[in-house]
Amino acid sequence: MALKDVVAGVRNEEGIAAVLGILKQSFGERFQTGQSFREQHSHTTSYLPAQLPDGVVFVETSDDVKTVVRACAAHRVPMIPFGTGSSLEGHINAPSGGISVDFTRMNKVLSVNAEDLDCTVEPGITREELNTYLRDTGLFFPIDPGANASIGGMASTRASGTNAVRYGTMKDNVLALTVVTADGEEIRTAQRARKSSAGYDLTRLFVGAEGTLGIITSITLKLQGIPAKISGGVCAFPSLKAACDTVIMTIQMGIPVARIELLDEMQMKAVNAYSKLSYPEKPTLFVEFHGTEETVALQAEQFREIAAEFGSDEFRYTANAEERAQLWKARHNAYWAGRALAPELNGLSTDVCVPISRLADCVAETQADIRETGLLAPIVGHAGDGNFHVLMLFDDKNPADLAKSEAFMARLNARALAMEGTCTGEHGVGQGKMSYLEQELGSAIPVMRSIKKSLDPDNIFNPGKIFRM
Amino acid sequence: MALKDVVAGVRNEEGIAAVLGILKQSFGERFQTGQSFREQHSHTTSYLPAQLPDGVVFVETSDDVKTVVRACAAHRVPMIPFGTGSSLEGHINAPSGGISVDFTRMNKVLSVNAEDLDCTVEPGITREELNTYLRDTGLFFPIDPGANASIGGMASTRASGTNAVRYGTMKDNVLALTVVTADGEEIRTAQRARKSSAGYDLTRLFVGAEGTLGIITSITLKLQGIPAKISGGVCAFPSLKAACDTVIMTIQMGIPVARIELLDEMQMKAVNAYSKLSYPEKPTLFVEFHGTEETVALQAEQFREIAAEFGSDEFRYTANAEERAQLWKARHNAYWAGRALAPELNGLSTDVCVPISRLADCVAETQADIRETGLLAPIVGHAGDGNFHVLMLFDDKNPADLAKSEAFMARLNARALAMEGTCTGEHGVGQGKMSYLEQELGSAIPVMRSIKKSLDPDNIFNPGKIFRM
Repeated sequence: MALKDVVAGVRNEEGIAAVLGILKQSFGERFQTGQSFREQHSHTTSYLPAQLPDGVVFVETSDDVKTVVRACAAHRVPMIPFGTGSSLEGHINAPSGGISVDFTRMNKVLSVNAEDLDCTVEPGITREELNTYLRDTGLFFPIDPGANASIGGMASTRASGTNAVRYGTMKDNVLALTVVTADGEEIRTAQRARKSSAGYDLTRLFVGAEGTLGIITSITLKLQGIPAKISGGVCAFPSLKAACDTVIMTIQMGIPVARIELLDEMQMKAVNAYSKLSYPEKPTLFVEFHGTEETVALQAEQFREIAAEFGSDEFRYTANAEERAQLWKARHNAYWAGRALAPELNGLSTDVCVPISRLADCVAETQADIRETGLLAPIVGHAGDGNFHVLMLFDDKNPADLAKSEAFMARLNARALAMEGTCTGEHGVGQGKMSYLEQELGSAIPVMRSIKKSLDPDNIFNPGKIFRM
Repeated sequence: MALKDVVAGVRNEEGIAAVLGILKQSFGERFQTGQSFREQHSHTTSYLPAQLPDGVVFVETSDDVKTVVRACAAHRVPMIPFGTGSSLEGHINAPSGGISVDFTRMNKVLSVNAEDLDCTVEPGITREELNTYLRDTGLFFPIDPGANASIGGMASTRASGTNAVRYGTMKDNVLALTVVTADGEEIRTAQRARKSSAGYDLTRLFVGAEGTLGIITSITLKLQGIPAKISGGVCAFPSLKAACDTVIMTIQMGIPVARIELLDEMQMKAVNAYSKLSYPEKPTLFVEFHGTEETVALQAEQFREIAAEFGSDEFRYTANAEERAQLWKARHNAYWAGRALAPELNGLSTDVCVPISRLADCVAETQADIRETGLLAPIVGHAGDGNFHVLMLFDDKNPADLAKSEAFMARLNARALAMEGTCTGEHGVGQGKMSYLEQELGSAIPVMRSIKKSLDPDNIFNPGKIFRM
C-alpha cells in the first residue's frame, strides 16, 4: 500500500529554527516561509497528501546551494530539491520538515558543444526551455516524460517517456554531473568524453537517487541531431493482445521506432472526448519514425506490414508536421483526458514495467482486474519498453474507494514483479512505492542504505524517500 | 606515473594462513597454492610486474563464492576475481596477497529470453563462448573489446571496444547483476525489465567497480538481433586530421556506423607486416555497417561521400563475409602486430578518450610527442567514441627507456584531461591509472572512498585498485 508510507518523520525543531534564521539572513527575499510558498512546493499532481517544508529558498548559483547545504548540515535539517513539482510519488514532500530548494531561477544553459553533441545545463531548466534554446543548433534533447519537467528533476527520478525506446532514459543521456555533497563541497562525477572506465560510475548513482545523496548543480547531457524527417501515425487493433504483439514484433525486428505508445479502449474514449477527435475507440498504437525521407518511409512500411499481420485496422500514417503535432498533443494530454472522464474524482497515476514478452499478459490481466474491481482506470503505455501507466480515478474522500484503489495497485505491482518487471519504469519510488521497492529488490536495500548512510550520515538529503533508514 | 602505483600492501599473514586451511578443506583439488597456478593468475598482457595471490580457488556456483567470501571476510583476507586475465592495468594483481577467485568453471548460460532480447550468464563465460551459444537464436552479444575476455571481467572494467559506437559499452548492456557482498549474502541489483526507476542504480555501481565492492555471480545482458546484412571497408587518408574529420562528420550526421576504427601510419605498417597484407601505409579507417541490404548500402554511400570530401583515397568496400572477416582479423591482431614491430621489447597499451571534436588534435599532438620522444608506438582507436590506444614498445630492462615511456604516458593523460577527456575509455584504472584518476576526478574520490568503506569496511575486495584507501 502506498498511502501508509506518507508518514510524518521526526522534526528537528531547534535545527529548523536556526536554519530559518540563517537562510533569511543569507538570502533575504529569496527565502520564503509563507504558507502559499510552502504549499506550492509540496503540491503535486499526485494523490498523496502534501507535507509542507518550513521554507523555500530560491537558489541561483552553485555557491547558493553550498550555502544552503552547509547551513542545513550544521543543524541537521532536511533539504528537498524542487524543479517544477511534476513528480508523482511524493518526491517533494517534506515529512520531517526542512527546506525546499527551488531551482526555478537556476536554469541557464552553461555550454553547448554542437560538434560533440552535448550541452551542460543548470538543473532548473525545463526540457521545453532547453529545446527552445537548442532550436537553431539543429540539435535536440530527446527525453520527453510528458510533463515539462526540469532536467534536474528528470535526472533525479531517472525519467524517460515516449521516445526512450529509441533514445534511452536519463541514465543513458547524462554524461556527467556536478553535485554538492553533505560536506558542502561540489564534486564532478565525470569528464565530457562519451565513455569512460575511470572509477565508480557516480553519474549513474546520482541519476535516480531522487535527491537523497546530494544536490545536483549541473548536468551534462547528450544531444541528438534533429532528424531530417519525422513521420508517424495511428493504428487501431481488434484486441489489446494484437496491439501488444505488434509492438513486440516491431522491437524484435529491430525497427528503430522513435515512439510506440499504447492506449487502451478507455483511454481512446477519453482522448476523443478531451481533444475532440474521432479515433476508433479500440486498443491503439501511436507511432513515430525518425530518419531520412527514405528510412522513415521504409520503417513505416515495415510497421504497417507487422500491424496488418496482427489484424490491425488501417494505419493512418502522416508525414505532415501539423497532423503529427495534433496526434502527439492528444497523446500528451492523455493524463488530463483521463482525469476529465470524471472531473469530480482524484487521480492516481502509477507505472510499472515488464519484459516486453510479458506486456500483453500484464496489460490484459490488469484490464480484467480493472473491470472486476469496477474501477475507472484508463491505460496508456510506452509499449516499446514494456512500460505502462494506469490512471486510477477515485473519490479520495471515500475511504472504501481509496482502499479499493490501493488494493488494486498492490495487485498491479505484484503482477509486474511476478513477471520479472519493476514497480516503476520511470516515475521513481518517492514515498508512494517504498513498499513495492522492498518487494522488488529487498536483498539490495541494505546496500542502498549503506551508501545513503556513508554519503548522508545525518539523513538530511530528501529524507523519507525510496527506503526507510 | 604508473609503475609507482604497483606497491606491495600490508599482508595479513595470520588471516591468510587461516583461509588457506579453510579453503583447502572446503574445496580440495579446486583450491591450488602451487607457484605456477599463482603465477598464471597474476600474469597479464600488461607491463606491470606480477604480484602473486596466495592461492587460487576454482568456484563453480554462487554458493562456492559465498563460502570463499565468508572465509575471507572472517579473516580479513583479500579476494581478487579472475576471468581470463586479459585486463591491462594490473587488475588481477594481489598487492596484499590473498585469494584469486577463478571463474573459468562458472561459465554457464543460465537463460536466454529470445523474445526479450536478453540472457543471463555466469561471469566466467567468455564473449566468444556466449556468441557461439547464441548462434542458433539469431541473436548476438555485441560488445567486443578485442580480447576474448570473460563477461564478468568485461562488466567489472566497464569494457567496450570496436562496436561501442553503435551498441554502447557494458554500462549500457548489463540489465541486472547478482553480487555476493561482504557479508557473504547474494543480492540482486535489478529485475529484467528494460528500464526502471526503482532505487539506486546498483547495477551501474558494480559495473566498472573492478571487483572492489563485491563479487559478481551472474549477469543479465541485453542482446541484439544479428543484422540481416553486414558490410564494411577500408579507407586510407592523406592525413590523420582528414581521417579524424571524416569520423567526426560521420557521427555528427547520425550515420549509425557499427564500427569506425582509426589506425595510424605505424599501425598500418605493423598490420601489413603481421597479417601479410598490402594496405596503403597511411592513416586509415576500418568501418562496418549493420542493417538491411538497403540500409547498409545507403550508409556506405554516405560514408564514401564524407570520406571523399576530406580527400580520402578509394574506399575499399565489401559485403563479402570472407573479406570482411580478414579485415577485422587484421584489426583485432593490431596489438600483436604492434608487438611484432619489435619482438624483443615489452609493450604498454594505454587508452584515453576525449570528446570527439578534440580527437584529431589529441591524436596529432600524441603522434608529434611520439616522434619527438623517439618512441616506437603505433596508435589505434575506436574513433567514433573519441577513444584511442597507444602501444608503447620499450625495453623494460632499461630504466631510462621505461622512464621515457612513463613520462610520455603522463603527458598523454594530461593532454586528454586538458581536452575534457578521461584517462581511460575502456581499460579501467586498476593499479596503473590510479594517479591519473586522481588528476581526473580528484573531487569525487572521497565519495568513491566512502562508498567503498561502507560496502567493504575491511577492504577485502580487490584492494589496492582504483584509488588508495
